[in-house]
Amino acid sequence: MTLDFWFEFASTYSYLTVARIEAVARAAEVSLRWRPFLLGPIFREQGWDDSPFNLYPVKGRYMWRDMERLADGYGLPFTRPTTFPRNGLLAARVACAALQESWLPEFVRGIYHANFAEDRDISEPDVVARVLEGVSQAPQEWLERAGAAATKARLREHTQEATRLGIFGAPSFAVGEEIFWGNDRLGDAIAWCRLGGAG
Amino acid sequence: MTLDFWFEFASTYSYLTVARIEAVARAAEVSLRWRPFLLGPIFREQGWDDSPFNLYPVKGRYMWRDMERLADGYGLPFTRPTTFPRNGLLAARVACAALQESWLPEFVRGIYHANFAEDRDISEPDVVARVLEGVSQAPQEWLERAGAAATKARLREHTQEATRLGIFGAPSFAVGEEIFWGNDRLGDAIAWCRLGGAG
Repeated sequence: MTLDFWFEFASTYSYLTVARIEAVARAAEVSLRWRPFLLGPIFREQGWDDSPFNLYPVKGRYMWRDMERLADGYGLPFTRPTTFPRNGLLAARVACAALQESWLPEFVRGIYHANFAEDRDISEPDVVARVLEGVSQAPQEWLERAGAAATKARLREHTQEATRLGIFGAPSFAVGEEIFWGNDRLGDAIAWCRLGGAG
Repeated sequence: MTLDFWFEFASTYSYLTVARIEAVARAAEVSLRWRPFLLGPIFREQGWDDSPFNLYPVKGRYMWRDMERLADGYGLPFTRPTTFPRNGLLAARVACAALQESWLPEFVRGIYHANFAEDRDISEPDVVARVLEGVSQAPQEWLERAGAAATKARLREHTQEATRLGIFGAPSFAVGEEIFWGNDRLGDAIAWCRLGGAG
């Protein structure tokens, strides 16, 4: 079975998952499909024009403390970004252009690291370019591919597919039509996958 | 160290926690304080006049499916209640009156079972009375204590204390001022407790 990993570059908890999902999936012999999408359009459908962590400050305060604790537990560097959420559109388009590339996971980790460990503005082409260089890719080539109509359409399709599946947050995991939401639930999603989706 | 367990009788995920928290805490040699509170006033402060699972139906659909899966995994009976959320005020007052009683955990489990396994209206005194009888208590006596001014004040204090701690959902766990939210995070809360709250 295949586990679809739905992530959004602005999502804090996705940073925790991105750091460990490859090792977890490999150990469980589960194949992984990386599915970048945008939460913005999904939030807007729920009437939110911002992250719920900003709209509901009590929940936001908890999340930042929780991220510190969890990153600490995983041994991951973490710095609360000075801007949240950051616009991950460009990075998500690069990821959509590179879905078949072996360096995709490393690129994804690089973008999350830039956002949540280095406090870089991942909406800036220069920042995305530096992450591409870090995975030995020519930035100009991939930034151009990111801007191609077919790439933009793919990201829109991903977001529509996430909406259809009932995804409302990130990270989410899908085994066929079965959805698991949250970094906490990666283990459950993997277990479901290994049971062949039969429960 | 002591783990404070904050629960609300209307909360679906709290049902899962209530079923296992005593065994988990005992195995970890952590002492437990049961802290009934009301989410309604906290939700109203966030501008919600209903459960977010009703206000955001996409999230609600996920939650009901997730509850089925998780209850199945824990071997717990689960029936989606015909009314959600149910008003847990009376049951929470009984629990506040009975905080020092050895039968409190069994009573709490009984109320959740009535709500989420038997689809009973836990706001009805008759339903609460039957659960009290099930734990060998005289219903009349405890329903009277539930209505006492001191009991009502205690529940209000609990809800105020939850608000002060930054609690915004149930179940939540507190180790001193450190908060963990969600049935998924019971293990983390217990681990934090065992580390003496030092992280």
